[in-house]
Amino acid sequence: MARGTNGLGVQVEDLKVCVVMVGLPARGKSFIAQKAQRYLQWLSIPAQTFNVGNYRRRSSAQPTADFFATDNPVGERLRRAAAEDAVDDMLRWLTTGGGVVGILDATNSTKERRGWVLDRCAAAGIACLFVESKCDDEALVLANIRDVKTTSPDYVGQDPEQAALDFRNRIRNYEKIYRTIDADGDEDDLTYLKIMDVGSRVIISRIQDYLQSRIVYYLMNLHIRPRSVWLSRHGESLYNLDGRIGGDAALSPRGEQYARKLPELVRLSVGDDRPLTVWTSTLQRTIATARHLPPHYNQLQWKALDELDAGVCDGCTYQQIQDQYPDDFRARDEDKYNYRYRGGESYRDVVIRLEPIIMELERSEDILIVTHQAVLRCIYAYFMKKDQARSPWMNVPLHTLIKLTPRAYGTEEVRYPAGIDAVSTWRGKGSTAKHEQPTEEAM
Amino acid sequence: MARGTNGLGVQVEDLKVCVVMVGLPARGKSFIAQKAQRYLQWLSIPAQTFNVGNYRRRSSAQPTADFFATDNPVGERLRRAAAEDAVDDMLRWLTTGGGVVGILDATNSTKERRGWVLDRCAAAGIACLFVESKCDDEALVLANIRDVKTTSPDYVGQDPEQAALDFRNRIRNYEKIYRTIDADGDEDDLTYLKIMDVGSRVIISRIQDYLQSRIVYYLMNLHIRPRSVWLSRHGESLYNLDGRIGGDAALSPRGEQYARKLPELVRLSVGDDRPLTVWTSTLQRTIATARHLPPHYNQLQWKALDELDAGVCDGCTYQQIQDQYPDDFRARDEDKYNYRYRGGESYRDVVIRLEPIIMELERSEDILIVTHQAVLRCIYAYFMKKDQARSPWMNVPLHTLIKLTPRAYGTEEVRYPAGIDAVSTWRGKGSTAKHEQPTEEAM
Repeated sequence: MARGTNGLGVQVEDLKVCVVMVGLPARGKSFIAQKAQRYLQWLSIPAQTFNVGNYRRRSSAQPTADFFATDNPVGERLRRAAAEDAVDDMLRWLTTGGGVVGILDATNSTKERRGWVLDRCAAAGIACLFVESKCDDEALVLANIRDVKTTSPDYVGQDPEQAALDFRNRIRNYEKIYRTIDADGDEDDLTYLKIMDVGSRVIISRIQDYLQSRIVYYLMNLHIRPRSVWLSRHGESLYNLDGRIGGDAALSPRGEQYARKLPELVRLSVGDDRPLTVWTSTLQRTIATARHLPPHYNQLQWKALDELDAGVCDGCTYQQIQDQYPDDFRARDEDKYNYRYRGGESYRDVVIRLEPIIMELERSEDILIVTHQAVLRCIYAYFMKKDQARSPWMNVPLHTLIKLTPRAYGTEEVRYPAGIDAVSTWRGKGSTAKHEQPTEEAM
Repeated sequence: MARGTNGLGVQVEDLKVCVVMVGLPARGKSFIAQKAQRYLQWLSIPAQTFNVGNYRRRSSAQPTADFFATDNPVGERLRRAAAEDAVDDMLRWLTTGGGVVGILDATNSTKERRGWVLDRCAAAGIACLFVESKCDDEALVLANIRDVKTTSPDYVGQDPEQAALDFRNRIRNYEKIYRTIDADGDEDDLTYLKIMDVGSRVIISRIQDYLQSRIVYYLMNLHIRPRSVWLSRHGESLYNLDGRIGGDAALSPRGEQYARKLPELVRLSVGDDRPLTVWTSTLQRTIATARHLPPHYNQLQWKALDELDAGVCDGCTYQQIQDQYPDDFRARDEDKYNYRYRGGESYRDVVIRLEPIIMELERSEDILIVTHQAVLRCIYAYFMKKDQARSPWMNVPLHTLIKLTPRAYGTEEVRYPAGIDAVSTWRGKGSTAKHEQPTEEAM
């Protein structure tokens, strides 16, 4: 009897899938692949991207556009070999390496190539979900080309203008053979998601199970409009002063000071003109922290943003927990991500209930979230790709506004300390200190 | 500053939408409309269906297929008048009646008619989400025709064979003018979901906001394969014996007896051959109740199925709650659906966390859920269309297996009592009784 433990709340042990990217160069395939990988890993679903370009670069590090010409037999042989190596590694990982979602990041731009991937996967008992990004918006493609020429290992150290020109020629070579999925109804049996013009239209065909459905829904909700996410903990609370966890305490005087200062920090970081939506938890310390923000900001309370539920330990100090529940205290230190407080939650549980928040964040533009230490750690870990063993130990200081700006290849972070003192609520592994200065590693 | 309180956890006060059904007769439009309405209402989002056929029947109760012929000016005038009346009522409800999602249930089978609905809604400041069901599977259409001829008010009291023939002629009249959305790229600017062959393929175009996205995701997950959902509370627990709520108690001896009996009840109701997936909460009383079920059934624990969190009242008897928190006790009696225990949850909160469970139930086939009183009430209310004021007072006896079978026009229910005594855990409004016999109304 299998027990599901991943962040979808559903067992996926028996559901494995190869996500096969499809599309011309500069259509955001790698962006989609890395977002999907991160989302799944955050949900504890083993996911790994296999980038055929990386395999090809082993034999041919910086080829010119000619390498990608349809009439270049050497280039074609090497590209085919790279695809074979990538698929071999992916299938090995999926069948014997504990993998659940393998993402094959390549153009896969012909019906023949897709058929070959499908056959290879079928022979290994793995289903394929094809994800095509089709974009005819010239401006978007050009923006992506500019991005690629400055970041792709194929063009490192080269003249940017020359690189852009060569890359456009490479795309032209692919255009000669590119065929969108099911162009003439002859790939009618494929399971696929076709994303057109960055999501303004999508086609979804023959989705077979829950895992595929979740991946598709997540990818449908992605957008690439510029935006930021601001994160803040509530101001210092009366419980923080006492070193007690949980509860629904009011702000301390210094916490009130932070609440009054927050509008200024936000103005500094956001500017005056950008409309912002503010999300808080349902607990009074986050609501009070957000209450001086401009009245034209929409505010919304989410129960899903409430602090990790400490169950029977709610309202205790760490010292009390260690005294009353020494085994629990030790177990939590050993595996903080998975430890579930008696009658309460684990970090893993919090991630599950935050999944709709992440989905809505992906759909949204500028959002400010005022929430709690454990919840903030989970959201931060999603954007900054922190792993589960470390994220519960991360230091997130009070009285600090954090700005996260997702970019094509990662997330930028800026921190704005309010300059208002607060107790540290960080506790190191193996310690019971009430107020402790975070170690280097937790910063 | 608006505060969201509906079951999506997101404010929808400013997002209103008209869901415009599109498709030939017998394509499941009314089924889709009523599912969407129920889902939204369950999430506390005001949703209402406006069925043009019901308006038309006011002037023409049982017309023959000729009425729907394109060259019948009287029929066309009456049908047009019915559509106008339905749209008038819908827009009035959306703009001044507190409505959020209006569902226009009609064929809307021409580009002109869709343009007219779009213009009417735009003039009232309401966005349109077109939902087309396109089905070319003859067997499915015929099954639906059989269904319609026996249930449609248009054919009540008529000879079934005659009715089916007439209905097929009516469909032929619509086929003459039917045009699928954006057939030639000339309805490219519409926001739409096109469901083809009952979901095997969907096209989603220009979805604009979260509310539309949630409706689309829900409708994508519907299927019409026959299936049932079985519900059971855990066996009687030691807390039940003491009249205490919450906690994580073990089963009582009679609860153990129920756990051993459950496989027999399930075999009786499900049969031997159907594969069943069993969902429990993470609390020991549901896991223990499910532990004698056949080992080939997949079992899965969901935190989202845990009992309503009674916060500070966890582990108390109702008498203790009344003594210690008399105001809370009274407030809960007055509005049990919205009352949130201090540090705990309301029924409304439970519905929010059950939303992914409902989504997954819609996607799934046969599922047995072993869960808790409040959670079971919420799931039951979804399927049986119970309203929020009543569902928290509903009696769900211990030691009883409930089978729900969704049909096109509602859900069938069968109850299998195990014949093993248990305390009643039902409490009437205004009472503090530990063991009380449910009133007639709660049954």
